[in-house]
Amino acid sequence: MTTTSEAERRAMQRALALAVTPGVPLGPNPRVGCVLLAADGATIAEGFHRGAGTAHAEAAALAEAGDAARGATAVVTLEPCNHTGRTGPCSEALVAAGVRRVVYAQPDANPVAVGGAGRLREAGIEVVGGVMIEEAQAINRAWTFAVARRRPFVTWKFATTLDGRSAAPDGTSRWVSSRAARLDTHRLRGLCDTMLVGTGTVEVDDPELTVRDEVDEPVAVQPLRAVMGLRDLGPDRRIFNDRAETVHLRTRDPGEALARLHELDRQHVFLEGGPALARAFLSAGLVDEVVAYVAPMLLGAGTSAVADLGITTIADALHLHVTDVAVLQGHDGEDTNVRLTMKPLTTPRRA
Amino acid sequence: MTTTSEAERRAMQRALALAVTPGVPLGPNPRVGCVLLAADGATIAEGFHRGAGTAHAEAAALAEAGDAARGATAVVTLEPCNHTGRTGPCSEALVAAGVRRVVYAQPDANPVAVGGAGRLREAGIEVVGGVMIEEAQAINRAWTFAVARRRPFVTWKFATTLDGRSAAPDGTSRWVSSRAARLDTHRLRGLCDTMLVGTGTVEVDDPELTVRDEVDEPVAVQPLRAVMGLRDLGPDRRIFNDRAETVHLRTRDPGEALARLHELDRQHVFLEGGPALARAFLSAGLVDEVVAYVAPMLLGAGTSAVADLGITTIADALHLHVTDVAVLQGHDGEDTNVRLTMKPLTTPRRA
Repeated sequence: MTTTSEAERRAMQRALALAVTPGVPLGPNPRVGCVLLAADGATIAEGFHRGAGTAHAEAAALAEAGDAARGATAVVTLEPCNHTGRTGPCSEALVAAGVRRVVYAQPDANPVAVGGAGRLREAGIEVVGGVMIEEAQAINRAWTFAVARRRPFVTWKFATTLDGRSAAPDGTSRWVSSRAARLDTHRLRGLCDTMLVGTGTVEVDDPELTVRDEVDEPVAVQPLRAVMGLRDLGPDRRIFNDRAETVHLRTRDPGEALARLHELDRQHVFLEGGPALARAFLSAGLVDEVVAYVAPMLLGAGTSAVADLGITTIADALHLHVTDVAVLQGHDGEDTNVRLTMKPLTTPRRA
Repeated sequence: MTTTSEAERRAMQRALALAVTPGVPLGPNPRVGCVLLAADGATIAEGFHRGAGTAHAEAAALAEAGDAARGATAVVTLEPCNHTGRTGPCSEALVAAGVRRVVYAQPDANPVAVGGAGRLREAGIEVVGGVMIEEAQAINRAWTFAVARRRPFVTWKFATTLDGRSAAPDGTSRWVSSRAARLDTHRLRGLCDTMLVGTGTVEVDDPELTVRDEVDEPVAVQPLRAVMGLRDLGPDRRIFNDRAETVHLRTRDPGEALARLHELDRQHVFLEGGPALARAFLSAGLVDEVVAYVAPMLLGAGTSAVADLGITTIADALHLHVTDVAVLQGHDGEDTNVRLTMKPLTTPRRA
């Protein structure tokens, strides 16, 4: 039977919700949820993946079910894996538990894990894939991207005044973004596994580059801090403090930097460097998402928020597709900022 | 009785709706609606003002009611006028018709029309003012502003890329704004009674400066076209064609230009000139509203959308308060533009 029942679709909705259980640490593994159903559609057990090194969602649900898993249907947001990593293959666990049928959402494109559905079918288990696949892919957007493209997904974030400035002529820039926009930036940083700046930003601004919460405390699980560039940096720089791990990528080439981060199992880079670093990534076509915080403020002059991209005529403009617009209400008399989330539409000119 | 009944408040809601009847031409007069109620709260007649030279809302309702107006309550969005202009005073008409009670929203601050409520009270009519005053003021925002401030309300509109550019380095700018944004601009122009540019814009761009509808045809009622500056302009310029009236204000001073437009009974100026004209108005503190169309496009270089305002440090930035954010969805693959509507918060530095 390649169609799904109403109970199975409801279970998939539940499994998707389990996958994004708050507090589950991000890591190199995808977020996955699993629900075990009895023949009558009743829920036997649930499970979700809690991060690298812990049980997969299917294993968690099977452990909870015990013998009750025999003859059950497993509804899972990702195709069960077929390899032994830090845990055993889920396909074998499902076979061993006597599961009768498996319904999954997103196929596992990870070359080392692929093949779970085939293994299950060989064992005589009914398998249906692709159920609510888009919802599942959205949950693991960066993981899905990184597995398919063999490099991390890159979100470039910048802040600008309404007239395209990041600082006044005398160099002052505190604060172009409102407090609400700065808090929102920390939230977005926390959804990535890597924050990337250039050596120039470290030398000039000396940022700590951590994720802080609403009361300005560092959160428990910090993304990797990455700095790229050939310059040596003193160990006293704040980016090297013990709040989080840091890697210095000794290259000026965005492609090389991303290849190195891919080797480090990084899937989502939050690009926060200055205009020159952004230009390098834009010119290489290596920006997958743009987040702009627009402050309703006019300077009329000063540092441009976006560097010269080598574009000379309007036909060569880099167009972006707006996917979301959010109004970040200001409190205590602060400016209301506007966040635009976009995807690059055209390949930019190479500067 | 200074309180109002449920029926009177419902009637005021209706009168507010009547005031903004679609298709009513704008002009120097405020938009007004009126409802006549019988003693039992039933509606006897309704009226609204159709534009300068036509009957006021009260007169229209009284004409519809005839003898039934005797003993009625008149609910009207603006204090009845007390002067003879192109029509007679509404206060006298209400007295003559035998109306028992008048409930109005916004007081008439217009010096030549003021005094209606006093005249009605002298005639023994119960008068209650200030009911739903904010809603009424919002309907005639520019009129209310112009009467109080003795100059037109100024809306400055500009279009910009996400990085603050209005044209590429080679001067090309077609199109920074999407078609949806350009249509929206025509809609906003049509809500004003005057469009203002500088002589420089006429010389360089030669705009027709008319309001066009969705099929690019000029609408029937066009705002005044105003051009300011000392330069002589050839009569062959499109701004002087017969599509609308045009006035050349021979001054470079924003205050003088607005004083002249006030004499011409203008209440809402849509400022569309280039960066220099905008700077002059901003520096003089004569911008009351800012409408920015942000195109999700990066140029990296080119003409700045906003001219140098003489601001050198971030503390002197001109802050704007965001009152509305609208997403203008692109069609047929066009960019989605974002419209920000704002009010200037601080007095800018004088450049």
